[in-house]
Amino acid sequence: MTANPVIDVLGRRLRLAVIGGAPGSFIGGVHRMAARMDDRYDLVCGVCSSNQEKAVRVGTEMGFAPDRNYATVDELFDTESRRTDGVDVVAIMTPNDSHFPYAMAALAKGFHVICDKPMTNTLDDAKALHAAVLASGKVFCLTHNYTGYPLVRQARAMIAAGMLGELRMVQVEYVQGGRAVRREMAPGSPRAWKYDRAKSGPSLVMGDIGTHAHNLLRFVTGLEVKAVCAQVGSVVPGQQVDDYAGAMLRLSNGAPAMFLATQAAAGIENKLRLRVSGSAGSLEWQQEIPQRLEYFPLDAPAQVFTGNGPGTLPLSARSCRIVKGHPEGFPGSFANLYADVAEAVAAAISGTPADPLALHFPTSLDGLRGIEFMYATIASSKAGGTWQELA
Amino acid sequence: MTANPVIDVLGRRLRLAVIGGAPGSFIGGVHRMAARMDDRYDLVCGVCSSNQEKAVRVGTEMGFAPDRNYATVDELFDTESRRTDGVDVVAIMTPNDSHFPYAMAALAKGFHVICDKPMTNTLDDAKALHAAVLASGKVFCLTHNYTGYPLVRQARAMIAAGMLGELRMVQVEYVQGGRAVRREMAPGSPRAWKYDRAKSGPSLVMGDIGTHAHNLLRFVTGLEVKAVCAQVGSVVPGQQVDDYAGAMLRLSNGAPAMFLATQAAAGIENKLRLRVSGSAGSLEWQQEIPQRLEYFPLDAPAQVFTGNGPGTLPLSARSCRIVKGHPEGFPGSFANLYADVAEAVAAAISGTPADPLALHFPTSLDGLRGIEFMYATIASSKAGGTWQELA
Amino acid sequence: MTANPVIDVLGRRLRLAVIGGAPGSFIGGVHRMAARMDDRYDLVCGVCSSNQEKAVRVGTEMGFAPDRNYATVDELFDTESRRTDGVDVVAIMTPNDSHFPYAMAALAKGFHVICDKPMTNTLDDAKALHAAVLASGKVFCLTHNYTGYPLVRQARAMIAAGMLGELRMVQVEYVQGGRAVRREMAPGSPRAWKYDRAKSGPSLVMGDIGTHAHNLLRFVTGLEVKAVCAQVGSVVPGQQVDDYAGAMLRLSNGAPAMFLATQAAAGIENKLRLRVSGSAGSLEWQQEIPQRLEYFPLDAPAQVFTGNGPGTLPLSARSCRIVKGHPEGFPGSFANLYADVAEAVAAAISGTPADPLALHFPTSLDGLRGIEFMYATIASSKAGGTWQELA
Amino acid sequence: MTANPVIDVLGRRLRLAVIGGAPGSFIGGVHRMAARMDDRYDLVCGVCSSNQEKAVRVGTEMGFAPDRNYATVDELFDTESRRTDGVDVVAIMTPNDSHFPYAMAALAKGFHVICDKPMTNTLDDAKALHAAVLASGKVFCLTHNYTGYPLVRQARAMIAAGMLGELRMVQVEYVQGGRAVRREMAPGSPRAWKYDRAKSGPSLVMGDIGTHAHNLLRFVTGLEVKAVCAQVGSVVPGQQVDDYAGAMLRLSNGAPAMFLATQAAAGIENKLRLRVSGSAGSLEWQQEIPQRLEYFPLDAPAQVFTGNGPGTLPLSARSCRIVKGHPEGFPGSFANLYADVAEAVAAAISGTPADPLALHFPTSLDGLRGIEFMYATIASSKAGGTWQELA
Repeated sequence: MTANPVIDVLGRRLRLAVIGGAPGSFIGGVHRMAARMDDRYDLVCGVCSSNQEKAVRVGTEMGFAPDRNYATVDELFDTESRRTDGVDVVAIMTPNDSHFPYAMAALAKGFHVICDKPMTNTLDDAKALHAAVLASGKVFCLTHNYTGYPLVRQARAMIAAGMLGELRMVQVEYVQGGRAVRREMAPGSPRAWKYDRAKSGPSLVMGDIGTHAHNLLRFVTGLEVKAVCAQVGSVVPGQQVDDYAGAMLRLSNGAPAMFLATQAAAGIENKLRLRVSGSAGSLEWQQEIPQRLEYFPLDAPAQVFTGNGPGTLPLSARSCRIVKGHPEGFPGSFANLYADVAEAVAAAISGTPADPLALHFPTSLDGLRGIEFMYATIASSKAGGTWQELA
Repeated sequence: MTANPVIDVLGRRLRLAVIGGAPGSFIGGVHRMAARMDDRYDLVCGVCSSNQEKAVRVGTEMGFAPDRNYATVDELFDTESRRTDGVDVVAIMTPNDSHFPYAMAALAKGFHVICDKPMTNTLDDAKALHAAVLASGKVFCLTHNYTGYPLVRQARAMIAAGMLGELRMVQVEYVQGGRAVRREMAPGSPRAWKYDRAKSGPSLVMGDIGTHAHNLLRFVTGLEVKAVCAQVGSVVPGQQVDDYAGAMLRLSNGAPAMFLATQAAAGIENKLRLRVSGSAGSLEWQQEIPQRLEYFPLDAPAQVFTGNGPGTLPLSARSCRIVKGHPEGFPGSFANLYADVAEAVAAAISGTPADPLALHFPTSLDGLRGIEFMYATIASSKAGGTWQELA
Repeated sequence: MTANPVIDVLGRRLRLAVIGGAPGSFIGGVHRMAARMDDRYDLVCGVCSSNQEKAVRVGTEMGFAPDRNYATVDELFDTESRRTDGVDVVAIMTPNDSHFPYAMAALAKGFHVICDKPMTNTLDDAKALHAAVLASGKVFCLTHNYTGYPLVRQARAMIAAGMLGELRMVQVEYVQGGRAVRREMAPGSPRAWKYDRAKSGPSLVMGDIGTHAHNLLRFVTGLEVKAVCAQVGSVVPGQQVDDYAGAMLRLSNGAPAMFLATQAAAGIENKLRLRVSGSAGSLEWQQEIPQRLEYFPLDAPAQVFTGNGPGTLPLSARSCRIVKGHPEGFPGSFANLYADVAEAVAAAISGTPADPLALHFPTSLDGLRGIEFMYATIASSKAGGTWQELA
Repeated sequence: MTANPVIDVLGRRLRLAVIGGAPGSFIGGVHRMAARMDDRYDLVCGVCSSNQEKAVRVGTEMGFAPDRNYATVDELFDTESRRTDGVDVVAIMTPNDSHFPYAMAALAKGFHVICDKPMTNTLDDAKALHAAVLASGKVFCLTHNYTGYPLVRQARAMIAAGMLGELRMVQVEYVQGGRAVRREMAPGSPRAWKYDRAKSGPSLVMGDIGTHAHNLLRFVTGLEVKAVCAQVGSVVPGQQVDDYAGAMLRLSNGAPAMFLATQAAAGIENKLRLRVSGSAGSLEWQQEIPQRLEYFPLDAPAQVFTGNGPGTLPLSARSCRIVKGHPEGFPGSFANLYADVAEAVAAAISGTPADPLALHFPTSLDGLRGIEFMYATIASSKAGGTWQELA
């Protein structure tokens, strides 16, 4: 048994195609990083732009084989669906309005699908896509990534295990400040589509983050929203799209909930917070410190659960890549050293100068200093705690 | 220009070999994840075990080409150094006592080297390795990964930019609880080498975490330690190795510092903390919430710097993978979805059942629920904020 | 000019009478402590119970002069209103339903009034009392004490000074867990009135804490609530009174707000939180750490304001009793020593044994140990940082 | 049984005299507030200044009876020691160098003594005073007030109860920034004595805060310091007094400790922090959020103890004035309303204008708004959650 369950089962990695997410796109880079992180996918092809020339150029840069460097999504779907070594999974990270047609086409060609949220821009499309998924028998994953945090999964597992008792109320809020100032978007600029309702959907704030908050509530509690009473609109004068959605909810067990999603809270970065209360206690999680989960049991001191720390339940444990006490970003700190070293090595091989900002990784000089310090420290202690000079 | 500076320069990724870090090793997995994260390396070969049979078996599982699946490190170094498409970089993640011979051998064969800390177990070895690195002209990186955190780099850049003025004092502490209880290690168990001073070096706590704290102090301040007065030993009765190292330091500019490294603080997970004070203010960083840096300017309210947030300096900005407000673990939350999907897809392809714990990712049903909720919310608001039932 | 503006103006302290708040009542003790803290009042009389015998007994214990130890509120009002040295201020801390008659009577007799919230149980009473206050020209203070925190006043002053720009949205929540479990109250038990709507008013959660949250929003923003859409009731099965009130609000400048007050969040102690966002930034305050105010300016790092710290505005400064860096509870830490010493001294004078729990204050032995430590520390340093034994 | 154990035992409050602490002195005001807070003392006389004229003037302002308004400490001690209703307790809050003579004189006259720290400026004086206290049989309290915080007492009680097991190590640090900039003090300015070693003692930082940190360690752990190795001096160029004291300690059970006291950490307000680790877990407390105590049990999730919250032990419970969830500063928030009302009432009585900053307390208008809001909220909910306009 290896550490790679896909290789265990298939004897190979999955073959992945990406639709959208050209370099420069934030979320495209995140998808590809996520696909690489656990080594279960080979990114074999993709169409990162609706501009065919750009699509092929980026494909070359990404190292796709020439015979798999497609200019259009149709071409990719057609060709790959006929290859014996064709892609298994298609990941869609395009503007909102194309999620539906690409996902439908991918399913029709027999691919498994990973798709950015919101799933579609219209309710009819959502119903049609869900039906198509069920009919296809394919795996379909919507990237509500906050459900991927180990402590969010811990919260779900703790509630499922009854640690909160009967659920009584929920508060969820997703507060950002990115649209606190009205911006004129030049037509054709990379994010201009966000301000075009035809592309971004009927309510930008709901599509961007409201669906995240809604899904987080559902994921953790296991409850559905049965009724809603809402204020939706824009609070920034002249804002072209919705930037505020507040609501009261009634959940499927009758419990009330408060819901807020806004992108107009000036100065706030990304406060996604959830509190769930039940007959036996409450839980709180906040996205900005995701490696902690606060548990408030009835009549006992509050407890803090951490990634892989004491009390971690299996659903959370399998989502932790690192040992307790280290935040989820720990591999990224290593990766920054690897990335900088790569630039330095590439410069050395090519004889070109490296970016000076890449040259801040620890070197053998730092290693020597560390060993000198260790020996001086030990010597000082052995001499009864006396001062020891270093060279 | 792509998003991949290595491909920009070399037209290919770097070829990486790993020494040590068999599956099951925590740090081996982190190294490989770090190498994949930014897509600048291809892992082409490696020797993960000193057991030749195991090394080859693991190599197969990792997907190494048969002609590059080596049984010994010597064989890998010899063969790869003669291939025209041989490895560029060797990453060493073995027990402490073998860092030195492997690093020396790798340099001798012309490889660039990434090496786990502590660099060596003896001071003579450290001097020899540092001299060899200088003589080789090769890139050598010691994985003091805490220097890779964006806000640690921000701290370094802020101090270099004079935002603290003249440095006056430093406090650094690295407090863990992993050795608060004395453990008997079965000989041959995976971590038994830690308790054997011949393998783990003269002071386990200093090698494991003391060198991290020392290097963090140096990295952020740009100062060296010039003198030390220390208490080193074990506070847990019967502990076979050092678990405590407290010290007072004198830094190269004359400033005093307090230093503590311990692995015997029961119940504490991983508190690595740094405070630097200068004539113009102070900075505090703590590893457990690495995406925040607290800045205490003289006579002004305290400020909180965040990853990619306002005030981010270039050295920090280039180390941030994500937009402000998201912790460094954000890609990992995506990766957990990708990993679970991979298991589900592999199960679907192979016709085997998937681990039920892998089936908690959001699906088209969740997408449909989100769109239903968005529409109901909008409808409620449009109707003047009235209650709207969901199906 | 003294430190006591009342003595400056009147040459004496104000004479205070208390209605309600017998020993054992939490809030009664707080009122009297508050009255003493700044030395501007002499508590000269009071009626702490509707039981006449108890009222007189408690009055004796409180040290009221025999001729001012009243058995009924009427008697107190009548007599004191005719004395030339009669009370100036009447403080009312009785169950909710008697706030109105006592306040009206006090005003009618010419007293200034301090009154616990909620002001009345009915809207008609509230209008009548407000009219009576206006007609009387007397000072009337409702003890929405959260407006007394220095950093809440700082928030008000910052907003008034335009530091948030135009206000865009508000979120306020007051979440407690005290009624998460349904309790049977024995009739006549001290808090039984809370569960009797005739005494506690039409909505316990709104009277207890909802009015606090509402007033905090108004105090800090300077805005009024113009419309509300609410869910009010109980989420704990069988609860006799309201324990939950969620609402969406429209404020007087058109901004939306989210409002929540609940006492049924199991395990939560007392989370009163406010966030205000404007065009130029946002503010957050939480009652559990009241000495901090977080300010999120648009496009600049977040700032933390503290009591009497840099940037403190005059309205906040005058409300701070202590120097920066000390929480508002600092005087209480001193008072605990004074209180314990008082028990020890009383025991010494009377020859009775003191409660052993009172004997944990620092003594001359601790003082000696401190001076020994100071001298040993200095001696060690003077000897170049060598170990110095203490006796 | 009343709520006042002193009146229970003696039938009266204790009579208190204060030495030093004229208005304008920070700590003088805190002492008097502390004495009033729990109503166990009557402040009957005092000498707040060594300037006789000023002493009498301040005594008048403080409302001392003319026959007890003393010009000198000697006069106060002589006269009060002969009165049958003379003072019981003398509280000393003068510059450091006079603590010793005043305390000795007070004991000699038969008074109980409360004395500011550091107890004396010399070790001989400390020994002499301690001997005098023992010989006198009087109560002597040194105001190491941090031992008065409920959660510090909780920490002591938890350790005494064995919740940490055998103590293994301690870290204590007291970090301030008040002397980060060298100041020239005008001779005779109120704090000039601090910069005169003859008055402030051999090490200002040790006397000011180092003794606090040392005593906190001893109070919580019950251990003594048996050896010290220290760096003491100033890190701010030209500083006239010590501003830095770092040390390693060996405690009476053999455990090591790290100790730091500094007033030169620019921008830092008042970080007093303590961590104690034992075989069964660790505890952390920080002065800036004193109402929380973090407990890290071995192999279980971290717990947070709060004032009067679940798990509060008797020594802590008796030191809590307020119900759980409210910080220790809660009475102060009430007191700010009382203080402002007092100014408004004094203005009303005297016909003078009140300071506009005093007129921010909630009034009957706020009360009316609250009741309007409560009724509108209830009405909205009763109508099924519909919008309800307010007047």
